[in-house]
Amino acid sequence: MKQWLPKLNFFYRKRPRSNRRQTVKFSPPVILSAGFAALIAVGTLLLKLPFATEQPITWLESLFTATSAVTVTGLVVVDTGATFSGFGLTVITLLIQAGGLGFMTFAVLAAISLGGQIGLKQQMLAKEVMQQTSLASIKQTALAVVVLALVAEAIAVIAMTIYWVADKGFTDALLESTFYAVSAFNSAGFVLSPNGLVDYQEQRFITLLVSVLFVIGGLGFSVIYNIYEQRRWYKFSVYTKAILLATLFINLAAMGILWLLELNNSATIAGMPWYDQAVNSWFHAVTPRSAGFNTLDTGAMTESSAVFTLLLMFIGGGSMSTAGGIKLGTFIILLMATYTFLRRREAVTLFDRTVPQDLVMKALAVTIVYLGLIFCGIFALMILNQLPFIDIAFEVLSASATVGLSRGITAEVTSASQLILVFLMFAGRLGPLTLGYFVATPKKRYVRYPITDIQVG
Amino acid sequence: MKQWLPKLNFFYRKRPRSNRRQTVKFSPPVILSAGFAALIAVGTLLLKLPFATEQPITWLESLFTATSAVTVTGLVVVDTGATFSGFGLTVITLLIQAGGLGFMTFAVLAAISLGGQIGLKQQMLAKEVMQQTSLASIKQTALAVVVLALVAEAIAVIAMTIYWVADKGFTDALLESTFYAVSAFNSAGFVLSPNGLVDYQEQRFITLLVSVLFVIGGLGFSVIYNIYEQRRWYKFSVYTKAILLATLFINLAAMGILWLLELNNSATIAGMPWYDQAVNSWFHAVTPRSAGFNTLDTGAMTESSAVFTLLLMFIGGGSMSTAGGIKLGTFIILLMATYTFLRRREAVTLFDRTVPQDLVMKALAVTIVYLGLIFCGIFALMILNQLPFIDIAFEVLSASATVGLSRGITAEVTSASQLILVFLMFAGRLGPLTLGYFVATPKKRYVRYPITDIQVG
Ligand SMILES: [K+]
Ligand SMILES: [K+]
Repeated sequence: MKQWLPKLNFFYRKRPRSNRRQTVKFSPPVILSAGFAALIAVGTLLLKLPFATEQPITWLESLFTATSAVTVTGLVVVDTGATFSGFGLTVITLLIQAGGLGFMTFAVLAAISLGGQIGLKQQMLAKEVMQQTSLASIKQTALAVVVLALVAEAIAVIAMTIYWVADKGFTDALLESTFYAVSAFNSAGFVLSPNGLVDYQEQRFITLLVSVLFVIGGLGFSVIYNIYEQRRWYKFSVYTKAILLATLFINLAAMGILWLLELNNSATIAGMPWYDQAVNSWFHAVTPRSAGFNTLDTGAMTESSAVFTLLLMFIGGGSMSTAGGIKLGTFIILLMATYTFLRRREAVTLFDRTVPQDLVMKALAVTIVYLGLIFCGIFALMILNQLPFIDIAFEVLSASATVGLSRGITAEVTSASQLILVFLMFAGRLGPLTLGYFVATPKKRYVRYPITDIQVG
Repeated sequence: MKQWLPKLNFFYRKRPRSNRRQTVKFSPPVILSAGFAALIAVGTLLLKLPFATEQPITWLESLFTATSAVTVTGLVVVDTGATFSGFGLTVITLLIQAGGLGFMTFAVLAAISLGGQIGLKQQMLAKEVMQQTSLASIKQTALAVVVLALVAEAIAVIAMTIYWVADKGFTDALLESTFYAVSAFNSAGFVLSPNGLVDYQEQRFITLLVSVLFVIGGLGFSVIYNIYEQRRWYKFSVYTKAILLATLFINLAAMGILWLLELNNSATIAGMPWYDQAVNSWFHAVTPRSAGFNTLDTGAMTESSAVFTLLLMFIGGGSMSTAGGIKLGTFIILLMATYTFLRRREAVTLFDRTVPQDLVMKALAVTIVYLGLIFCGIFALMILNQLPFIDIAFEVLSASATVGLSRGITAEVTSASQLILVFLMFAGRLGPLTLGYFVATPKKRYVRYPITDIQVG
């Protein structure tokens, strides 16, 4: 139950007493939170500059936009394309890149630093997950993240520019492509039109490319790196296999369910040929788990689809990715732990491997903190606004899971509610455990108490 | 992780081979489910008899009413007082008594049978929880449940009859008192008026008495028995102390929150003097965790109150009680396990006692199965009905947690939806683990696999 967040051993490693004073002792949750907060502060200032916008925006609008960009959420209170100047859009693009890529890089550094700090068993775990053990390879690995991301984005920019060049001319095609490639790979969900990607709902090349980018970004770095290094299924780690299979299964199941739910909805897919129905069902099946782009009018989808989308947002994507939610790994462990208990087995297993008990406890803690956060968010917004429960639940889930889908109330809710959404995006991006870290100061206890029994269920 | 539901060792005890054929081997979940199903079937038949009702009802209405009575839920599709004859009301009263008391008695038998079956450690646990170890005392203990319940009900009947006799005359006062006493102590929430107890919202004696009855009934038998036997706080078991403190805290906090949320709502408490506001806030703070009676118009309460009530219904009351929900013990363990993890402690503790790991796993399993059940129920009802999300979520939670509060849509939803509600009441009463028992056949596995790592959160 120790080591719930890997410590950066640059900061923690014990040094000779004489050197101690020079060591700055901050744990990763603190560094992470401070880094994101600083980035948001800088972003807020830059976006508030007169030449960042076509018409003046309020401080709250600036804070909301900067937070949404840094946390790669994509919820907006102003129309991004119409409000911001070229400078403003460049700032937003950089905030997205720093928030998305920066987080992935930091997560890698934090996870890899496990290697030098703890016992052989954990080193083997770190090796299995990260394929890295030595501190020497940290730099190389972090570099690999950056290179992989930039290469993926560059390919997307080239492809989109070629597709759009006849329509929009070279400069506009290139600029738009860059914005969308960065926004998509980082699962940011930022768009240039108030309709989202609805204008492109029949440009299958664009919507499929965007969805491929954010599905990859949402897998999580360790999975991408594992695939990139190993290339063969049988060589993949248990975690990589689990994430890939779960992603495939959930995406296809969700596509089928949403297709059925929207089949007769003339406001969404009812009037389309079957292949456009398929592409848009696919898009709205995969977008809720991290990206937040929409090719259909989210508010016009059936309420049943909205309820189903709540579940997808709650689950989220891979760990150490641009996605939010409780994360796919957590979801898998919750289901496996329940199944294990019902079958009266002793240990949770996955692909013939045992899942350690403390990971199950971690999954439990993540889920409870997350449920608590969401409940408080919904409850607060219900009190502050006279809006339908479904819209508020959707908005709160979307912010907490850094998804960015909205049924259209983001700009409509009270200022206090928008500040709450800012907090939810921030907390959702840092993850429930980082939040929990600030709530409960870690403190080890060495007393052992006799066992008791509590009635459950 | 074994022994998630205590086996009845009358059925499980190994006998000499020659006697084996005579032994009927059914596990408690099967017996429990079959018993409830049989009771519901008999109830459905009896309530469908021509002389059970003033005007004919459909089979679905009969099934719904019988299920609601046996599972002590209190959701209704017909106006109980106006629809059923004296015979019908007697049948309903008996169904409530059998469903509520029968379950408690059975639960006691099941829990106590732990004693003869398993190791010394569990015997000590059983002793701590039930204050009983020997098989000989089962009969005595089960008898104590019945006697305690009947005494409590008898006192309530006498008190209410005296209060009402001037108003209603002796016979009516006695009959109504009996109906309400049984309905209240078993947390059934059945009433004789379509307005619930709204007509009595200023008869503070009645509403407080009813709330005291269902709060006691919702504590769970083992707590009541523990208090009855020990009488002193310091002698109470850890479980008893935890349940009493949590009940007190949740009830008072909920009372304050609901009072604030309804303060300006002229459809509920805004026009009342402060003491009636207090009594009715108290009533609606305690009713969602098991009882389902209402002294205010549930549908007229603010949507914020409805959202808060969802949480109370989800938590529910004590184990082995007339309440539903995930149960208070489960809720406490979930919170404690999360807190333990965040503080990086090794073991979950409560009142200087260690909570065994398999109880934490049980709490996790209960919660996940329950969340799955509720989500599927809400999703299905959203598809089948064009009704607001808040009303459907409220109805599904109310049925699954056998609460019986409604925002007024029970009779309005489609027949298929009513059948789903019947299933949810049934599943909710049996408990998520009994349901899980049928989904996953228990099977022990003796292979041990190497440890793996899964990224979580
Ligand atoms: K997003
Ligand atoms: K009830």
